[in-house]
Amino acid sequence: MKALVYHGPRKVTVDTVPDAKIERPTDAVIKLTATNICGSDLHMYEGRTSVEKGTVFGHENMGEVVEVGEAVTAVKKGDHVVLPFNIACGFCENCERGFTGFCLTCAPKGSAGAAYGYADMGPYRGGQAEYLRVPYADFNCLVLPDDADEKDRDYVMLSDIFPTGWHATRLAGLSPGDSVVIYGAGPVGLMAAMSARIQGASRIFVIDHKEDRLALAEKIGAIPVDSSDGTEVKQILDHTHGLGADCGCECVGYQCHNSHGKEVPNLTMNALVETVKPTGLIGCVGVFVPKDPKAEDALAKKGEIAFDFGKFWSKGMRLGTGQANVKAYNRKLRDLIHWGRANPSIIVSHELPLDQAPDAYKHFDLRDDGWTKVVLRPAA
Amino acid sequence: MKALVYHGPRKVTVDTVPDAKIERPTDAVIKLTATNICGSDLHMYEGRTSVEKGTVFGHENMGEVVEVGEAVTAVKKGDHVVLPFNIACGFCENCERGFTGFCLTCAPKGSAGAAYGYADMGPYRGGQAEYLRVPYADFNCLVLPDDADEKDRDYVMLSDIFPTGWHATRLAGLSPGDSVVIYGAGPVGLMAAMSARIQGASRIFVIDHKEDRLALAEKIGAIPVDSSDGTEVKQILDHTHGLGADCGCECVGYQCHNSHGKEVPNLTMNALVETVKPTGLIGCVGVFVPKDPKAEDALAKKGEIAFDFGKFWSKGMRLGTGQANVKAYNRKLRDLIHWGRANPSIIVSHELPLDQAPDAYKHFDLRDDGWTKVVLRPAA
Amino acid sequence: MKALVYHGPRKVTVDTVPDAKIERPTDAVIKLTATNICGSDLHMYEGRTSVEKGTVFGHENMGEVVEVGEAVTAVKKGDHVVLPFNIACGFCENCERGFTGFCLTCAPKGSAGAAYGYADMGPYRGGQAEYLRVPYADFNCLVLPDDADEKDRDYVMLSDIFPTGWHATRLAGLSPGDSVVIYGAGPVGLMAAMSARIQGASRIFVIDHKEDRLALAEKIGAIPVDSSDGTEVKQILDHTHGLGADCGCECVGYQCHNSHGKEVPNLTMNALVETVKPTGLIGCVGVFVPKDPKAEDALAKKGEIAFDFGKFWSKGMRLGTGQANVKAYNRKLRDLIHWGRANPSIIVSHELPLDQAPDAYKHFDLRDDGWTKVVLRPAA
Amino acid sequence: MKALVYHGPRKVTVDTVPDAKIERPTDAVIKLTATNICGSDLHMYEGRTSVEKGTVFGHENMGEVVEVGEAVTAVKKGDHVVLPFNIACGFCENCERGFTGFCLTCAPKGSAGAAYGYADMGPYRGGQAEYLRVPYADFNCLVLPDDADEKDRDYVMLSDIFPTGWHATRLAGLSPGDSVVIYGAGPVGLMAAMSARIQGASRIFVIDHKEDRLALAEKIGAIPVDSSDGTEVKQILDHTHGLGADCGCECVGYQCHNSHGKEVPNLTMNALVETVKPTGLIGCVGVFVPKDPKAEDALAKKGEIAFDFGKFWSKGMRLGTGQANVKAYNRKLRDLIHWGRANPSIIVSHELPLDQAPDAYKHFDLRDDGWTKVVLRPAA
Repeated sequence: MKALVYHGPRKVTVDTVPDAKIERPTDAVIKLTATNICGSDLHMYEGRTSVEKGTVFGHENMGEVVEVGEAVTAVKKGDHVVLPFNIACGFCENCERGFTGFCLTCAPKGSAGAAYGYADMGPYRGGQAEYLRVPYADFNCLVLPDDADEKDRDYVMLSDIFPTGWHATRLAGLSPGDSVVIYGAGPVGLMAAMSARIQGASRIFVIDHKEDRLALAEKIGAIPVDSSDGTEVKQILDHTHGLGADCGCECVGYQCHNSHGKEVPNLTMNALVETVKPTGLIGCVGVFVPKDPKAEDALAKKGEIAFDFGKFWSKGMRLGTGQANVKAYNRKLRDLIHWGRANPSIIVSHELPLDQAPDAYKHFDLRDDGWTKVVLRPAA
Repeated sequence: MKALVYHGPRKVTVDTVPDAKIERPTDAVIKLTATNICGSDLHMYEGRTSVEKGTVFGHENMGEVVEVGEAVTAVKKGDHVVLPFNIACGFCENCERGFTGFCLTCAPKGSAGAAYGYADMGPYRGGQAEYLRVPYADFNCLVLPDDADEKDRDYVMLSDIFPTGWHATRLAGLSPGDSVVIYGAGPVGLMAAMSARIQGASRIFVIDHKEDRLALAEKIGAIPVDSSDGTEVKQILDHTHGLGADCGCECVGYQCHNSHGKEVPNLTMNALVETVKPTGLIGCVGVFVPKDPKAEDALAKKGEIAFDFGKFWSKGMRLGTGQANVKAYNRKLRDLIHWGRANPSIIVSHELPLDQAPDAYKHFDLRDDGWTKVVLRPAA
Repeated sequence: MKALVYHGPRKVTVDTVPDAKIERPTDAVIKLTATNICGSDLHMYEGRTSVEKGTVFGHENMGEVVEVGEAVTAVKKGDHVVLPFNIACGFCENCERGFTGFCLTCAPKGSAGAAYGYADMGPYRGGQAEYLRVPYADFNCLVLPDDADEKDRDYVMLSDIFPTGWHATRLAGLSPGDSVVIYGAGPVGLMAAMSARIQGASRIFVIDHKEDRLALAEKIGAIPVDSSDGTEVKQILDHTHGLGADCGCECVGYQCHNSHGKEVPNLTMNALVETVKPTGLIGCVGVFVPKDPKAEDALAKKGEIAFDFGKFWSKGMRLGTGQANVKAYNRKLRDLIHWGRANPSIIVSHELPLDQAPDAYKHFDLRDDGWTKVVLRPAA
Repeated sequence: MKALVYHGPRKVTVDTVPDAKIERPTDAVIKLTATNICGSDLHMYEGRTSVEKGTVFGHENMGEVVEVGEAVTAVKKGDHVVLPFNIACGFCENCERGFTGFCLTCAPKGSAGAAYGYADMGPYRGGQAEYLRVPYADFNCLVLPDDADEKDRDYVMLSDIFPTGWHATRLAGLSPGDSVVIYGAGPVGLMAAMSARIQGASRIFVIDHKEDRLALAEKIGAIPVDSSDGTEVKQILDHTHGLGADCGCECVGYQCHNSHGKEVPNLTMNALVETVKPTGLIGCVGVFVPKDPKAEDALAKKGEIAFDFGKFWSKGMRLGTGQANVKAYNRKLRDLIHWGRANPSIIVSHELPLDQAPDAYKHFDLRDDGWTKVVLRPAA
């Protein structure tokens, strides 16, 4: 079968690889109908992680079941399903508490959390390919309703970014009527904005320096805050009588750049400490890594940031972080899409056949204008 | 009346000051029967804060009501009461949500939170004195039951350290059956340990380098972990199959010292990131300050710490901080004392008349062996 | 001043009564600008309660502050404020936990909860009058923003029915994406529907037998379910694959009638047990009374209903009840109105001067078509 | 193999039945080392349910794994495990939210929840036998630590009554410092008392009319309240200044008898409405059934009770019900046993070989003095 394979920094090609197949009785094999390129694919693409050559990328996957193992009962051939990027067993200590992003069974020994096509998250091939093996299929497949085809650009967002944006708002403790400041109008930040709107936020401030992304934020119902001149903190404080918003979301991560284009890893977190009110919560779903040897900043190499902890403490703030436990949200988010209350596909800018994935990576990596979100169509 | 007055770094004397009196119809005046010296008094005593000369210290106060303003209805002359160190109005946006440690009415303009006898927390005289004015007495006084005298060394701990230790465990999300690692066996750490025991923790690890404090921790039902050789992280991991405890409490603060006696402000927080398991929560009630110009460390001057954020994020951890909202807990903790389920006085090492307060400050500041907690008796 | 006075079953007149005035230093006096007639006023109007002759009705009040007591600091002359129907002290054991609907200070001795112009809820005159005395004004007044005049038909709903409808959904544990069944499309049921929509419900089923009310429900974004032929349970089950909705709200109360016009007090609760899925919650804000001597049903006389407890238990259901703690919600709901995310005035059918109140009571009591909600204008 | 088989009302014998065996790749087979008789076995034993002749009873099971299906990975031959009485798949909509007592996969079509050896809860043979087939073994087996043998009388209680008693306190929203009233000092009520103690209740009132059970309650740290003269409500109110306890637990169920020996199904629930304070919660784990054709009471036949709903509503109370989701608690309760903080075996009165089960049923059914809890030993 065909699959997108990593061959080194900024070098990916569509190759022929061995077919995906049932390996354990709890597996299913899926024929991919849609699979997205994600911002965190770029971390690997750029060569900034320990990902190995030969890896097949792709953790935002949706498709049709073509085969199931003999232990599988809830999913059958022909079902349309979308898969959490987290691979989870369903029965370990973390899964049973709902922390499926920190599965102890599927993760490499000594760590917590597994994913498709990802550095350090287990030996699972990604879905930017024609077929995909899905472990623990009964637990990991979310079956889609009759409108699976019609709304497939919405449903595919259930694999990662919609639940991840939603997770940001849950970690931030957003309540109806709250104001929220969201750092970053990339796909995840935009999904956080949509999540906040659905949950009844009164005002949603979205910070970014790219015009096209801010325009999307506004379309979603948020108030765009342009950070290209470095005044975003002041703008938020002006909007909120100097007190700050009720809560905040970090949707950028460790490669954050300031308005002069320099990487400043603590920029977003410290700006959130400044722009969220005392007693407020911050939810951080932008990726931060335990070590980043290729970073310029000395602290960043060790995975540390110069965090404004004194102010954070004095304001009595709280902070939640980490990868979304997709299964905690995907069923209800599916229902919101099905009943017409959510339309995450609003951010899709490109739909391309798998063959054009290498070119799409190039544009997406350059943050070219208008390349907000790419859906690949392996079956096309 | 007599009161303990601050005259500069490490210089406090018992002076005669103007009597406390009713200033507003919602006030009460209390005759102090017990008032403690707190570790955070030492921050001011050592001259490390912006506290002004002439300040009367004392925020852990208990006494008998001697007069009430005409608007006061729930408290009357003769009542024995204990006062939260937080001064709160009860009706601002924060108080009405239970965040009485972040009152917007009583705090200095533009900030959140007020306290007795404290730098930057409003113009309220402290209680290391014969009498104390209590604003919003109906809201701030907790009336004590018949055994107020008999158990007054227990009840006085409701003013601060028992609720503060309890707050650490709540911020840490402790559930029955959990293991918890507590950094620091000072009064607050010991109260956190007692709180964890009452809430049904399965194992409570308390880290400190002082033998007498670790002995108290053990008496309370905790497992003492000696950090004097710098191996505390390894010890906790050994106890927990390498995974870490379910949750953690920081009860030390910004003046933390390593095993060589050097101040290392990020030591405790980063050790907790190491020793708490993925998905775990950390509650930080040790004081961290927004700026500390007298610190040696360059980051610390700005109130920043080099926080191991990459690991924290990868483990999907969460963190809560700040001063305890005493009123959120003091009523139920009072009941636990009254019905014989809590005995926070176990940590009291000294009971002294107010006159001996200057000497007590000296010993407590030197962390002299055996000076765990001092109760002053202004009425003695 | 003028006020609406109760003189016996279905007999109310606008009389001259003594002026409202400051009685305690914590009081304010308000000039009413809007005050609604509520469905629970009708319980008294119909003579079915123990309310005494001479009572001034009116617990949904909004106005302008004309005088404050000397202890009042957060509210000042000229402020536009809306008042929770609950009168609460802010400092008793229940208020400090947020249960302001169960205040122990303001309630008659031995009970919990106080209100304006209500049977058995304390000696507080109602606001269907020119002026109103507000106890504990700092705690009870919610100050309104600049658009107080422009949106006053929205803001007045913060006094009771919008928070009460919201409370129904919170007691029901509604989460975004949930389906919810709401029994009753009176003002409270419609506000519950609006609350559910704001909170991101995927489907909102509203049951009633009156066409005009169902039309309003649809306008709010709900699915109307006509119960006039007694098939409402079947309709809900058909909509939900036979499983029932995720949660349910009771917004009718003890005077519920079946499709033949007979009073059947257990009808709504048992229908909700039937139409909510296993593990689901029911929030009941329709009023049920501890005794109802004038009821026909023998159980109802004692305040009992024949509750389908076996099915409720087998399905592992949960149930929350009681009057809304308005202050738990009114601040954020105010923000939602202010920022254009909520428009509770959609249900207002009539705005009338106080003089026409007796006539309005007559129509409202007869459930005349189109008399959904009446706003009285005492200042007009 | 040998197993206890039901042959009609009060007629059980130990028969030879076909061996338990692996039927699906996700199964395990367990050799029973301990299996308890439960109060709800008596509902079937007495012939009051629809249970069929030939049923093997036993849902409180513990044993050693002797064989696993090929899909099973977390459990292996030789492991000592204890099994929740609920049988759950781990991946249905209810299981993934933690409601394993309401599994949709394992339950009979159209219902929610499965169990071993139980009427109407699926075709699963019980464990009062030599061997037991365990479906979805990875999800349902809780592996025990090294002291599995030594503390097996404690660990076997994790199958049902300890988590069920714990569930009562969680449904009741018990917080540390609370007072709680528990109706019933049978095994579940006693476990609720132990749970309340572990969670830091300040006072635990346990109501029963049997002296031996009340003595056990006292040993566990509760205050015994004798209901044999019908004054239990008054006693509780006297203990609580007339207000009632903070929360309540129902641990009796539909066969409740009054002090004259008459079955009064609404007795316990209405007494709890009386003895729990306004705003309090009640957790009901005593079994109530949707219909009970053999009951004397007309409402009871239909599964209804005459519930004091008016008072319940006026007090703003809340209520949670249903079977415990054992997996929500058993892991942490296991840890509490392992680390010496819980000793549920305190209630064991008899340990008997399987052969003596018929005789044990007889005594237990007669509520003979001293027959508190029977552990059967099939391997003995």
